[in-house]
Amino acid sequence: MRWEGGVVVNIYDIAELAGVSIATVSRVLNDSPNVAEGTKLRVRRIMGENGYIPSGFSRGLGLNAMKTIGLICPDAADDYMAKAVACLERSLRNCGYDCLLCCSGYGYEDCQIAVSALVRHRVDALVLIGSVYADDDPDSERVNYIREAAAQTPVFMLNGYVRGDNICCAVCDDYDASLAAVTEMIASGRRKILFLADIDTVSTNLKRKGCRAALAKAGLELCGDISVGLANQINQTRDHLLELPDLDVNGIFAANDALAAGALKYAKARGLSVPEDLCVIGYNNSELSVCCDPELSTIDSREQRLCQIIVDFIKLRLGGKQVGGKVVAKGYLIRHGTTDF
Amino acid sequence: MRWEGGVVVNIYDIAELAGVSIATVSRVLNDSPNVAEGTKLRVRRIMGENGYIPSGFSRGLGLNAMKTIGLICPDAADDYMAKAVACLERSLRNCGYDCLLCCSGYGYEDCQIAVSALVRHRVDALVLIGSVYADDDPDSERVNYIREAAAQTPVFMLNGYVRGDNICCAVCDDYDASLAAVTEMIASGRRKILFLADIDTVSTNLKRKGCRAALAKAGLELCGDISVGLANQINQTRDHLLELPDLDVNGIFAANDALAAGALKYAKARGLSVPEDLCVIGYNNSELSVCCDPELSTIDSREQRLCQIIVDFIKLRLGGKQVGGKVVAKGYLIRHGTTDF
Repeated sequence: MRWEGGVVVNIYDIAELAGVSIATVSRVLNDSPNVAEGTKLRVRRIMGENGYIPSGFSRGLGLNAMKTIGLICPDAADDYMAKAVACLERSLRNCGYDCLLCCSGYGYEDCQIAVSALVRHRVDALVLIGSVYADDDPDSERVNYIREAAAQTPVFMLNGYVRGDNICCAVCDDYDASLAAVTEMIASGRRKILFLADIDTVSTNLKRKGCRAALAKAGLELCGDISVGLANQINQTRDHLLELPDLDVNGIFAANDALAAGALKYAKARGLSVPEDLCVIGYNNSELSVCCDPELSTIDSREQRLCQIIVDFIKLRLGGKQVGGKVVAKGYLIRHGTTDF
Repeated sequence: MRWEGGVVVNIYDIAELAGVSIATVSRVLNDSPNVAEGTKLRVRRIMGENGYIPSGFSRGLGLNAMKTIGLICPDAADDYMAKAVACLERSLRNCGYDCLLCCSGYGYEDCQIAVSALVRHRVDALVLIGSVYADDDPDSERVNYIREAAAQTPVFMLNGYVRGDNICCAVCDDYDASLAAVTEMIASGRRKILFLADIDTVSTNLKRKGCRAALAKAGLELCGDISVGLANQINQTRDHLLELPDLDVNGIFAANDALAAGALKYAKARGLSVPEDLCVIGYNNSELSVCCDPELSTIDSREQRLCQIIVDFIKLRLGGKQVGGKVVAKGYLIRHGTTDF
C-alpha cells in the first residue's frame, strides 16, 4: 500500500493507509504496550513500504512530521507585509514546511508577546517580517527577547538586524538607497526637502538618516520631518500636509508608497505640478505606485530577494548547517513620473 | 506556581512551570509508566493550580491545547485576501486560536490539494477565503472535495457558497450589488457598457450576471466582456484595452479595483475625460481606489463584515453548537470621482 497524495509521507498518511488513528501510529512509534502486536506489525510494514521516517518530534509526541515555521509580521494587510507573507509561505510550503501566521501589531510589548507565544508553540523556526522587531543598535538589550527566542528556535529576520547566536538577517540597505536617491534629488536642484513617515521603525530611521546625510553633504538640512502616525492612510496624509502652515518644499522623500501617494494628493490639492514644482519619491515599489498619476518614482526595497535569502537560510539551518549574520541587498530607485532625473 | 503569561494555560505553560518537557507532560496526561510517581504528582498539582484542562486532542497526543484554524486563500499578496487573512487572524487569535496559513493558487486541483492537506493536518476548522473554492451551483458535485473536508472538520467559506453539512458560508450579494450599480450607470445615460474581469471565479460570474441583468432590463446587451487573465496587473489591463480595435464604450464595470485602475489609465492614454466620456466603477473599496485620480467609485463588498460573521460562526461551532447555511451581506456603491450619479 503506497501513498499517492504527495512527496512527504507523514504520520497522517500512515494513519490513513493503515486505517488507524494518529494516536495509534504514535503509540506504535513509542512501542506502547496498549497496541495489539498485529496492528504494530501492520503499521510498521506500511511505514517501511512508504519510506516514512519519523522526526524526533514525531517520535516523542506522535506529532505531525511536517515542520512548522512561525511567520510574525505587524499587519498582514499591509502591502509590504502581505507580499512577504505570500512569498515566504509559497516557498516554504514548496520545501514541505507549514506556516503558522501571527500578526503582532507594531507595539514593542505586542511584538514580545507574539514572539514568545510562537516559541512556546515549539515552531521549528521563526521568521520576523519587518524592521519593527529590530533596534537601531544591533547589540541593544532592548531586543534581548529575540535573542531569548533564538536560544530555543532559529530566528530569521526580514529587513531587521539583531546580532546574536542562531539569528539570521536579510536586510535592504535602506540608508544607502535613501542617501543615493536624495543625493540625486538635490543634484536636480531641489533644496527644500521634506521627509515623510508614518510609523517609526528601524527602517524608517535608516531612510531618514540617509536623507539627512545626503542633505548634509550639500550643506543643507531637512526642511521638515513629518510623521503622520498611522500606516496606509493616503487621504489623511494629504490632509496632514494641507494643514501645515507655511509648508514650502520642492521635494518629498516618503518612507513608503502610501505616504508618497498622499503627498501627490497634497500637490494636486495645492495646484502644484509634479515633478516641476514638487518632486516625490516613494518606497517599496508597490501597486499603489502604478495607480498614481503621474506614476510614482519609488525605491525597490528588494523584498522578493530578501524573502529568497530567508528561505535559503531556513533550508540550510533546518538541514543541520550552522548559519547566522546578515546579508544585505542593494535597493535602488525606479524612475517614473514624479521625478525628472 | 501560577502562569502569568496569558489567559489560556496550555501544555507548554504546564511544561515550563513544572520544569519538564512537553513529552513528559503528555506522558503524565496519558498516565505512562515511564514517568516517576513524584513527577506525576508535581505536574498534576501544577495543572490543578492553574486550571489546566487538557483537550481531547492533547490527551490523545500530548499536543498543543490551543485550537488551530486553517486559513486557505489563493494568494495572500492580493489586497482583498490579505485584508481577510489579517482580519481573521487577529479576531481568531483574540479568541485563543492559532492560524495555519496556506496559499493554494487559483487552479481547481491546487485548491483541492490545499484543502485536503490542511484536513490531514487535523486543523480544528478550515476557512476558505474567496469564491474560487465554490461553484456557480451550490449543489455541484465539482465541490465535493469541500463536502469531504467538511465531513472531517468544520468548513467556513468567505464569499463562496457550497451547500452541505458542516459548511457555513458568508457571502456578499455580488449579483444584486452589480445589478444596482449598473442600473444606475444606465440611468445616467451610459448605454455602451463593458464588463472587465481578470480571473473567472464564482464572484466574477455573479458580477457579470448582475451587469447583464441590468442591461437586459433596459433592453441592452454588454458592449464587451473582457478578461485580462492575470490578477493585479494595472498597466497590462490598460494595454489590453488600448490594443482592442474599435473599443467604443462609455461605461466600464470592473470586477475589482486594480482592473478599474487599469481602465482609468486606458482613459487617460486615450484622452477620454472621466466620468464625462467614460464612467468607471471598481469593486472592493481598496486603497487603490483612493490613489486613483479621480478617486475611483467602487463597490464595498463588506469584507470586514463577512470576516466577523465567519469568526462568530467559528466561535459557535467550536463551542459545540450546530451551525450551517449561508449569511448574505449587502454590497453597495461608494461614490467617488469616476461616476456622476
